[in-house]
Amino acid sequence: MRGRLTVIGLGPGDPRWLTPAASEALASATDLVGYGPYLDRVPDRPGLRRHASDNRVELDRARFALDLASTGCDVAVVSGGDPGVFAMAAAIFEAVETGQPSWRGIDIRVEPGITAMLAAAARVGAPLGGDFCAISLSDNLKPWETVETRLRAAVAADFVVALYNPISRARPWQLGSALELVAEHRGPNTPIVLARAVGRPDECIRILALCDVDASMADMSTVVIIGASTTRLIAKPDDSAPYVYTPRFYGVRS
Amino acid sequence: MRGRLTVIGLGPGDPRWLTPAASEALASATDLVGYGPYLDRVPDRPGLRRHASDNRVELDRARFALDLASTGCDVAVVSGGDPGVFAMAAAIFEAVETGQPSWRGIDIRVEPGITAMLAAAARVGAPLGGDFCAISLSDNLKPWETVETRLRAAVAADFVVALYNPISRARPWQLGSALELVAEHRGPNTPIVLARAVGRPDECIRILALCDVDASMADMSTVVIIGASTTRLIAKPDDSAPYVYTPRFYGVRS
Repeated sequence: MRGRLTVIGLGPGDPRWLTPAASEALASATDLVGYGPYLDRVPDRPGLRRHASDNRVELDRARFALDLASTGCDVAVVSGGDPGVFAMAAAIFEAVETGQPSWRGIDIRVEPGITAMLAAAARVGAPLGGDFCAISLSDNLKPWETVETRLRAAVAADFVVALYNPISRARPWQLGSALELVAEHRGPNTPIVLARAVGRPDECIRILALCDVDASMADMSTVVIIGASTTRLIAKPDDSAPYVYTPRFYGVRS
Repeated sequence: MRGRLTVIGLGPGDPRWLTPAASEALASATDLVGYGPYLDRVPDRPGLRRHASDNRVELDRARFALDLASTGCDVAVVSGGDPGVFAMAAAIFEAVETGQPSWRGIDIRVEPGITAMLAAAARVGAPLGGDFCAISLSDNLKPWETVETRLRAAVAADFVVALYNPISRARPWQLGSALELVAEHRGPNTPIVLARAVGRPDECIRILALCDVDASMADMSTVVIIGASTTRLIAKPDDSAPYVYTPRFYGVRS
């Protein structure tokens, strides 16, 4: 029996950012697998089975979902944002590669979603207007040295940088270290966007100069966008938060 | 009179990837501004005015849209993909900064969309599963040396790299140069994804080893994803195209 598994990106929270393709995949699923708060975003209907888990042990959750699909169920694995960006899709494929040979016969699809940095950028203007990088600050899955090497390379080459998973109770110091490293390469007035819970009722977005950012201003639900040397602010006449954007032009304009 | 301007991401082409928020913004607009083929994707309705332009002179188009909004119109500037990623949003804010002071009073919003690399990644698996960069290969707006510096930094630090605007009639050699630079740092079997027109009827996706990629395989509508050293293929039992994914783990697993 050939099952089906779709890894679905719900977007950052606002249901108006959930794509119709993702909605369709949710509507046809027999089983939902995912972190509890993500499952809570999917409306209930008769016959839909929910398998909530906590936010850790993603590989166990992936194996559970594949096992369920291999029995013929139509399984939807739900992620916030985009499932391919620091979320469940890579865990699913890792489980496929190292798991039951029969899992390779499952019809596995990925439905893209709006990832946090795109939503955060849209809220403030166009800070990702130039070349940019996305880095997860979590050192649960890679050595901290790797994070530092990549962050240093990115700021030295003047990329805009989006930091995912900046801080958590178990990882309290990494964001502070990262900001210190950034300050070695970027000026104190470099624009920083701290975008928390974008698209959710408790959304909070702050635009600060690098020298005014403290790691305690971020939490697990925050994405941090670090401007390049060219990233600029535009004041608004009503003194509300400025626009932040990175010009497409770089270097001397002819 | 305070006008309104929304910069809207239509996603990569499949209308099932257009977010409900973007649909709403399109439905309330009085005027559409954008590159002709993007405007063609928006259904017609009575009273909707269309202002199509070619794909160049984005800044002129931005100024035209702002001027229209300043007269009280509800203007939608449409982009493919996400408007903040190598698209119209940065051009709009550049025009605001350098243009009429009154333009700063326009209610400007950005509606995010699924950008090409997310859709391309979803089609093949999870190649963006680790840290990644997005680089535009166009040297119309920045010196080629900047592109090279960034690409070298990205591959040396083992990021996955998504290349936008890889090649065009006016820029025929840049992708070949970029691939040569990548080959100095990555092995010949590094997985490369060439994703053309994702989500459109003429979609064509190829998964190749770095040593087998030729720049002529890409065009203006292609996004190129270059795997990191850890990016892997998983063969399927039916010999169809393999999955491509980048594990979340990096370095020695404890």
